[in-house]
Parts: sequence; C-alpha cells; structure tokens
Amino acid sequence: MKIYRKTRDVSAFVKSVKAKGKRIGFIPTMGYLHEGHLSLMRRARQETDVVVISIFVNPKQFGPKEDYRRYPRNIKKDERLARLSGVDLIFYPSVSQVYPKGYLTHIDVEGVTEGLCGVFRPGHFRGVATVCCKLFNIVRPEIAYFGWKDAQQAIMIKRMVKDLNMDLAIKALPIVREADGLAMSSRNKRLSSRQRKDAAVLYKALSIARRLIREGQKSPVAITSKMGRMIKAKKGTRIDYISIVDEGLAGVKRVKKGNMIALAVWFGKTRLIDNVIV
Amino acid sequence: MKIYRKTRDVSAFVKSVKAKGKRIGFIPTMGYLHEGHLSLMRRARQETDVVVISIFVNPKQFGPKEDYRRYPRNIKKDERLARLSGVDLIFYPSVSQVYPKGYLTHIDVEGVTEGLCGVFRPGHFRGVATVCCKLFNIVRPEIAYFGWKDAQQAIMIKRMVKDLNMDLAIKALPIVREADGLAMSSRNKRLSSRQRKDAAVLYKALSIARRLIREGQKSPVAITSKMGRMIKAKKGTRIDYISIVDEGLAGVKRVKKGNMIALAVWFGKTRLIDNVIV
Repeated sequence: MKIYRKTRDVSAFVKSVKAKGKRIGFIPTMGYLHEGHLSLMRRARQETDVVVISIFVNPKQFGPKEDYRRYPRNIKKDERLARLSGVDLIFYPSVSQVYPKGYLTHIDVEGVTEGLCGVFRPGHFRGVATVCCKLFNIVRPEIAYFGWKDAQQAIMIKRMVKDLNMDLAIKALPIVREADGLAMSSRNKRLSSRQRKDAAVLYKALSIARRLIREGQKSPVAITSKMGRMIKAKKGTRIDYISIVDEGLAGVKRVKKGNMIALAVWFGKTRLIDNVIV
Repeated sequence: MKIYRKTRDVSAFVKSVKAKGKRIGFIPTMGYLHEGHLSLMRRARQETDVVVISIFVNPKQFGPKEDYRRYPRNIKKDERLARLSGVDLIFYPSVSQVYPKGYLTHIDVEGVTEGLCGVFRPGHFRGVATVCCKLFNIVRPEIAYFGWKDAQQAIMIKRMVKDLNMDLAIKALPIVREADGLAMSSRNKRLSSRQRKDAAVLYKALSIARRLIREGQKSPVAITSKMGRMIKAKKGTRIDYISIVDEGLAGVKRVKKGNMIALAVWFGKTRLIDNVIV
C-alpha cells in the first residue's frame, strides 16, 4: 500500500493505472476510519481494480465555531485499517497541498443543500462539494463511494457530478451501525460514556418512527414530535432538526414510501446525524 | 467535420479519440465566429490532433437585462468558417442539453472576478466558469484556447482549472483587431455604421495610454482621465470602467510593466471591451 502526500504523485500513479486499463474505486474520508468506511473500501475492492482513499480533514467544510481542530485523527491506525481492507493508495495531503496560496474557487449545489444540515452548517456543503470535485479530478475514479449516514452529502455529490458532467459513478452504501443501533461515526469517539449510551436513542427514535408509519401514521408533525420527546428525555441533548423529506430533500406534508426521516442532535459538544428511509 | 447536438455523442467521439492516444484542442465559443475565434482554431490545429469547438450562447452568463436574446447567431456561416479552419467537431447543444431539468450547480472564482466587468455584470463570471467546467469535462481537451480580449475571463478560467485540479492547459491568444484597431467581437456587428466608426476610439485611447506610459507617466488617474475624455467625445458612449490593474486584476497606484489597461464602454446598446498590456 502506498501513501502519497503530494497531488503530483497521485496523478502519476493514476496515469499509470489508467494506462493499464484498470478501474479505480475511490473513497474520500476525513480519516479516523471505522467500520462504515471499511465497508466502502471492501465494496470498492470487489467492484474495481485499484482502491484509493483520501484522508483529509477539510477545513473548508467546517464553520468557524465548529470542531475542525477537535476532529479526531489517528493516521497510524488508519493506515493499518486501510491496508487490512485492501487499499492500494492513501492520498494524505496537507492543507496547503489542497488549497495552495492564491486559491479562489468554490462550488455550490443549490436546492438539496438548503434544508437539513444546510440550515445549521452554512458553508459546509460548499466545502464538501469543492473538495470532492478536486479529489475526483486528481484520482479520476470510475466509482466513488459514500456512506448513507451523510445522505444529504451523497445526494449533493450525485447532483454535482451529473450537473458538471463529471465522468464517474457515485455509490452511496448503507449506514453501518453499532450493536445498539448508533450509526458509526468518527465523532462517536468524542462522546462521554454516558453520552455514548444515551446516543442509542437516535436510532431507537428513528425505528419507532418507522414503525408508526408502518402502522398508518402519515403526519410528519406527529411522528417528529414523538421522536423529539424521546430525544429530549436524554440529558444534555439539543436537537438541530428532525425532518421527514422527499427525494429532493424537501419537507413533506404527508409521509410516503421512499421518504427519509433525518435528524441532527447534539450530545454536549458533539453533533450526530442519522436517518432511515421509510 | 462532425456537428453533434448531444453530450453523449461528444463523449463517445472523445472516448474514441482518446483511445487512439490523440490530443484534443478545444475552443468554447458563443458562435458568430470571427477572425479572433479562427486564430484560436488554427492554433489548435497546429498544436493538437483533433480540434473541437463548442457553439453555445450560454444563458447563465447573461444578466436578466443583458443581450442574451439579441446576441448575434449564424450557425450556417459558423459551420462554413469552422470547416475552413480545420475543425473536426462542432458541439452545438441546446440549452436543455447543457442545463437539464433539475440542474443546481455553479462555480465561483473569487478575487479575480470581483473587479472590472465583475462589478457591472453580476453573475456573468459564475456562468462562464460553470459552463467551461462542464464543457471541459465533456470534451476532455489537452489544451483549451481563449482570446485575450476577454482577459478577465481567461485569467479566471486559468485560476479555476488550477484550483479544481483539472487536467488541461489553458492558452490565451492575442487580440485580433480590425484595420482601424477595433478588437474583433461578435457584438461589433450590432453597431450602427456611425458607432462602428466611433468605436475605433477604444484602441486609439489604449494606444495613447501606452505611449504616455512609455514616456514616463505613472499615474493611473492621469492616464485613464485622458482616455475617458477621448471616449466621451464620441456621441452616445457610456463608460463602465477604464482601469489599470496588476496580474491579479487589482487596481494599481503606480503603473508598472506587465500591468493591463482595460476598459468597457457602451456604444448605444452595445457594450464593448478591450485591453492592452503595458
């Protein structure tokens, strides 16, 4: 497994891979890899010839008051896990490698970024879209893999790739959960043991919502209020949103099959997101 | 020479060209081709194996009060001129081919788009950057050619390509001028015969500015005031700007070698731009 820190080294690697007619599978990450990431790598390993991941905590997708500095990092552990998952190359650039002096460009995807997390994290999706466009242009994958926990991100990236005529497929794979249902996330490690236990309420609330809908409940307000009460019962939680949205991520008036129930909840200083499809 | 209206046909063509290891030269245009465009095509013919041009009057780079509808068009004449210039493929898409239903993405390059025309044409450079990114992704050229008349555009595109790690070279070629010095532009055809004659003042003013600088004048204000007086002496003119800027397109306090004198001036309802490098 190679580890490159320079764009030009990745470009040379990609060029030689392409010259052999091999297909590249790519997983952009912020590191601190967990089973969610590893499931993407294993899928890329099955579906493509060469597996590339990037590890880059992207400052442009964090707001000034967000957890860029506190975001967990452990490159040595990430290397080990990536190697075990059959990764061929880790692109592990510095900030100045990605955004050199004089950098001026960004990408916005409207509509799908305006609701849900877009309301609470201004600039976040711009940062994600921009860095993914750059990474796709450097790594030139046939397929890029994303986790469905960040559903809004995956939907935005699919839209950007289509809108900008980028020549790759985007696959979003199912959320990987802990035994108690908590969606895997690098940020989980920042929870206290009490918060960690309480955080199981998120998936519990989503599961109950799904059951209510199966039993005939069609009112988003009735469902999300019930979920809100469950979550607020846990100490130190703060709800950014609990929403039921359609495929374009617009709020719905009556719940239908294919809708997504999505939420973002703070446990102390740690913000977690999760979702289920109805 | 082929003429394709569908993105997928261009993609198939590009794929087969790339499979043969051939290099693509690309000139994005809004059509109504003139000698300025043709000089780019001939250069592409010399430097690359396959020459592709696009003809697309891009609605997203026109403001709501601008001349999108009145922009001159003549596809038959364009076809003839392109064929004579050795073009292999014209990509001539419809608006819905470029911006299908559900389109949501745009690209902004900050800094270099904020002065000069950016002040007077809000949204213009966003539209240009976005369509060029799309066209580059479809045509996948080794080199794309731009005219230096639109210097701010060329500088922005170079910046975008570098910032987004796009794998192509941008070349900006010298302005081609009419016998009286007027920079060639598709919009010249919209001038009355009186306006057409008066429009020669633009290059005359730029040339006098350059002479003043050669003679030791260093004050931008002194130079641009003199130019302004010359231009205002022509009936029905309105000046958007006359500016002397550095390579980052920021205004200068003292004129230096390598600075650009740039202007945008209305003759009736037609807005012309021009520039010279000191």
